[in-house]
Amino acid sequence: MNESIRNSSAGQSGTRFERGLAILGEISGTRGAAVVDSLADIAPDLGRFVVEWAYADLYDRAGLDLPERELVTVGALAALGDTAAQLNFHIDAALQVGVTPVEVVEALIHLVPFTGFPRVLNAIGVARAAFADHGVTIEPPVMDDDRDRYQRGADKLVEIDGQHGPDVIASLQDIAPDLGRYIVEFAFGDVYHRPWLPPRRKQLVTVAALTALGDTAPQLRVHIGAALNVGLTPAQIVETLTHVAAYAGFPRVLNAVRAARDVFEERNMSVD
Amino acid sequence: MNESIRNSSAGQSGTRFERGLAILGEISGTRGAAVVDSLADIAPDLGRFVVEWAYADLYDRAGLDLPERELVTVGALAALGDTAAQLNFHIDAALQVGVTPVEVVEALIHLVPFTGFPRVLNAIGVARAAFADHGVTIEPPVMDDDRDRYQRGADKLVEIDGQHGPDVIASLQDIAPDLGRYIVEFAFGDVYHRPWLPPRRKQLVTVAALTALGDTAPQLRVHIGAALNVGLTPAQIVETLTHVAAYAGFPRVLNAVRAARDVFEERNMSVD
Amino acid sequence: MNESIRNSSAGQSGTRFERGLAILGEISGTRGAAVVDSLADIAPDLGRFVVEWAYADLYDRAGLDLPERELVTVGALAALGDTAAQLNFHIDAALQVGVTPVEVVEALIHLVPFTGFPRVLNAIGVARAAFADHGVTIEPPVMDDDRDRYQRGADKLVEIDGQHGPDVIASLQDIAPDLGRYIVEFAFGDVYHRPWLPPRRKQLVTVAALTALGDTAPQLRVHIGAALNVGLTPAQIVETLTHVAAYAGFPRVLNAVRAARDVFEERNMSVD
Repeated sequence: MNESIRNSSAGQSGTRFERGLAILGEISGTRGAAVVDSLADIAPDLGRFVVEWAYADLYDRAGLDLPERELVTVGALAALGDTAAQLNFHIDAALQVGVTPVEVVEALIHLVPFTGFPRVLNAIGVARAAFADHGVTIEPPVMDDDRDRYQRGADKLVEIDGQHGPDVIASLQDIAPDLGRYIVEFAFGDVYHRPWLPPRRKQLVTVAALTALGDTAPQLRVHIGAALNVGLTPAQIVETLTHVAAYAGFPRVLNAVRAARDVFEERNMSVD
Repeated sequence: MNESIRNSSAGQSGTRFERGLAILGEISGTRGAAVVDSLADIAPDLGRFVVEWAYADLYDRAGLDLPERELVTVGALAALGDTAAQLNFHIDAALQVGVTPVEVVEALIHLVPFTGFPRVLNAIGVARAAFADHGVTIEPPVMDDDRDRYQRGADKLVEIDGQHGPDVIASLQDIAPDLGRYIVEFAFGDVYHRPWLPPRRKQLVTVAALTALGDTAPQLRVHIGAALNVGLTPAQIVETLTHVAAYAGFPRVLNAVRAARDVFEERNMSVD
Repeated sequence: MNESIRNSSAGQSGTRFERGLAILGEISGTRGAAVVDSLADIAPDLGRFVVEWAYADLYDRAGLDLPERELVTVGALAALGDTAAQLNFHIDAALQVGVTPVEVVEALIHLVPFTGFPRVLNAIGVARAAFADHGVTIEPPVMDDDRDRYQRGADKLVEIDGQHGPDVIASLQDIAPDLGRYIVEFAFGDVYHRPWLPPRRKQLVTVAALTALGDTAPQLRVHIGAALNVGLTPAQIVETLTHVAAYAGFPRVLNAVRAARDVFEERNMSVD
């Protein structure tokens, strides 16, 4: 570590800085410290904020484990779309803390219905490079059954979204029925149907991506509800939103908390 | 084509996959298949989804022809801003299906009032590279009459947006009158005044870009209305929004459908 | 300058074009004209619009001086995130018109709570390159006192945001109290507490970034209020929003003007 950074935080915030560095080392080896060091020339305090706030304050919190936090981070970064360097770092970190390469790819494929193909295709390119650097190879699973895409999608839609799902599809019948059909067939029959990432992890990634994307309040309400449906707790959902603040800023997160509040109140649930 | 991709889709979805590949070949030669092949190592099903959902399901739909679909795609990608590889691919595809280079450039210039200069300048750089690769040269038209920018802008504003346009300008008089003046002079007197892309195509590009951009509900309502004013049908507008789902995801499109519904209801129009 | 560009604007708009070029030269030396020239091959009128609308119309306006305009531009571009070339250009321009390198870095650090770390880290990389090209070195200030982060953050929150600030924190107590704590400790105790960029400039950068980001209406209302609290006038705030139109387009700016109107009306203030 650069001495000026060390010294600037010695004494008053040594504890947070040291704890943040330790977590950064756990997820990235020496790579995170190198990023922090690289800021010493023009923005040393920015490096300190990364260590102290992102890692000591956020990553060290209970509520989500490190593999979950890295999946949330990957979801937020893929949705932002213009952060290839950070996405590479956190795909590597995800592997480091035990997320499998297949789960990383499945998390990205899962995002297509939410972000569209281009950002996912770019993120897959980043993942390929990160896998190569990390020295992992992957035997990608292939879905070889395309029967009954509509029916299995309709079933999955109810399973995940509850009655909100069919309501959205029904509301499209008079104006864009095929758009509704694609949500059933493609988003649920093709994508949600994939079994290689557990439903709770899919919803963590979904909520993170919708939060980072912005202008998605109705969809956040549906998918925060879906997160509860698959067994995440209100506390875990709030934890996910809080974590995303480091990647997408407080405004997006405050708006998402408003959506979460609506859902929790509707279900008479509270956070604790 | 990679054999595992071929096989994974043989039997149950061979028809959609083959049809999608044929359309992909029509718009991109061998380039699209190469993109799909490049996904075989870590995400073969993602390549299959591109072929089956984006190309077999969406590009093959009636309602918009291929040149219109490529202009819609270019508008959405330019507005997203962080998708240079895909924008290059689809500018090339636009040329392939008969959009002229001048129309591509005019579509991008048309977006300045909606996205600002930076994303358009970056997209022009992408277009330049795509034109060079495609081996086309361009004699760009130049507007050499700058007289009466305000008056011709005010006329164009009413022609395109109807009474909503002057209402927006009037609403700015007490707080930001010069902002209103720039909308008249620049967005309409300079940009909309340009005659080298037909009004219907301008509105397709506009609606696609606003949808992809997000947080533009009031402007979507005005410009979906404008799309109707220049002769697009409700079905074509819904078709445009549906197409954009592949590039910007369902949440943005569902929000835009809500804006379209408001406009259609206000005008007692329906989609059929 | 390319002759076709010169000629296209001679006569009718020579005055605006010449005035725009002069300002462009003032902020960028020969670099701006080179950008305009580079557009002559496929989009000469786009280059003319940059000169005439962005520079002659917007940069030449009263209300904000050139250093303020460049800070506003840097804030908008950093928030957009996918515009590295333009950000490099305008960080260089900021230095050219007298913004110090430390102020540039402080403006970027200031954005972390609004945009998250990734876009700021990328912007810092752009700044580093621009500083090197410009031949400036920087002795970055370091905050070496981390005592009482919560208390000093709470004080700063009231100083900047007035009662709206504590209201936001209080509203989070039942659902995401630690998120509220981080806003106090990190956004205000760490970041707003930094003394190396004057409060008015911080609010110019904040309002520009929130406008460009989109989907931030509640935060824009709080921070337009904060801009008034630290001494900016309604006219300067509207001037800031108008300026951002060149970088983020009219839709984002029209939505931000709506937020500004709410705040001005609540305080019985008007623009003149």
